[in-house]
Amino acid sequence: MITFGIDPGSQKTGFGVIRVEGSSYTLVASGVIRMEAGAPLAERLNEIYERLCTCMAEHAPDRVYLESIFHQKNAQSALVLGHARGAALIAAAKQGCPIGEITPAEVKKAVTGRGNADKHQVQEMVRILLALDKKVAQDASDALAIAIAGASRARFDDAIARGTGAR
Amino acid sequence: MITFGIDPGSQKTGFGVIRVEGSSYTLVASGVIRMEAGAPLAERLNEIYERLCTCMAEHAPDRVYLESIFHQKNAQSALVLGHARGAALIAAAKQGCPIGEITPAEVKKAVTGRGNADKHQVQEMVRILLALDKKVAQDASDALAIAIAGASRARFDDAIARGTGAR
Repeated sequence: MITFGIDPGSQKTGFGVIRVEGSSYTLVASGVIRMEAGAPLAERLNEIYERLCTCMAEHAPDRVYLESIFHQKNAQSALVLGHARGAALIAAAKQGCPIGEITPAEVKKAVTGRGNADKHQVQEMVRILLALDKKVAQDASDALAIAIAGASRARFDDAIARGTGAR
Repeated sequence: MITFGIDPGSQKTGFGVIRVEGSSYTLVASGVIRMEAGAPLAERLNEIYERLCTCMAEHAPDRVYLESIFHQKNAQSALVLGHARGAALIAAAKQGCPIGEITPAEVKKAVTGRGNADKHQVQEMVRILLALDKKVAQDASDALAIAIAGASRARFDDAIARGTGAR
């Protein structure tokens, strides 16, 4: 199964693609879409959308995951972040596969075992879980963590479904 | 010149298309894209995006305008609104024409002559300026007001440019 994680942001949008076989994960691709400072907002959003569409078409994910956002304090930054999330969600909708949202705490818990792990612990665990020689850039690593958490949740859901079916 | 106004919202996105000849405006098309309650967010955003793309392809606007947003008080509603604006901006970017943002006060001023006019006054003036027999639905009317304000600003900018050129 191919799982695609997206970490949209107003400046940078990270993406991470992993192959899931049982409980083992392999890195397929990852990257960061940087917004050109000064470019008009519509063009920047179109760039996120187009890059994600291209990347998803290439890797044909079975599931796409984004981090869900509950507690934005600042309305202005929430608005800007909403624009980037909108671009990511439309790209995911075009792919036609299930789209899941995962809380930040669930991502941390799935990757490190603790819901309150810090950014560096998450980054290091992503490196270990994907058996990489060195850490991936922060935004790409965050997207990979989302993909791993999504895969972990999917495995759990599938196990529940099988258990229910066997009764 | 064809001017396209968009009023994106989390529940309903209004759009309005006008033909501009000098200082006279004619209604070309208008409508409201309603979000199906309960549909996944990604599908709802894709619906806004697709409907706007289709409508823009049909009417080939020379300029697209959206209302700019400064003072969102609630971060959660700003986030949701940001998603819908993102969808609208990507659709506009695909069109390849200039995209402008207009403040709510500029829209009211352009349509009614007063920056603090109420919604009903704006709606009534849209009806009068477009020489319509009856009012257009609120969200579509708001989008038409944005298109009229955009056309008004463009006319002003063009006059300035001609003035500068003649010096």
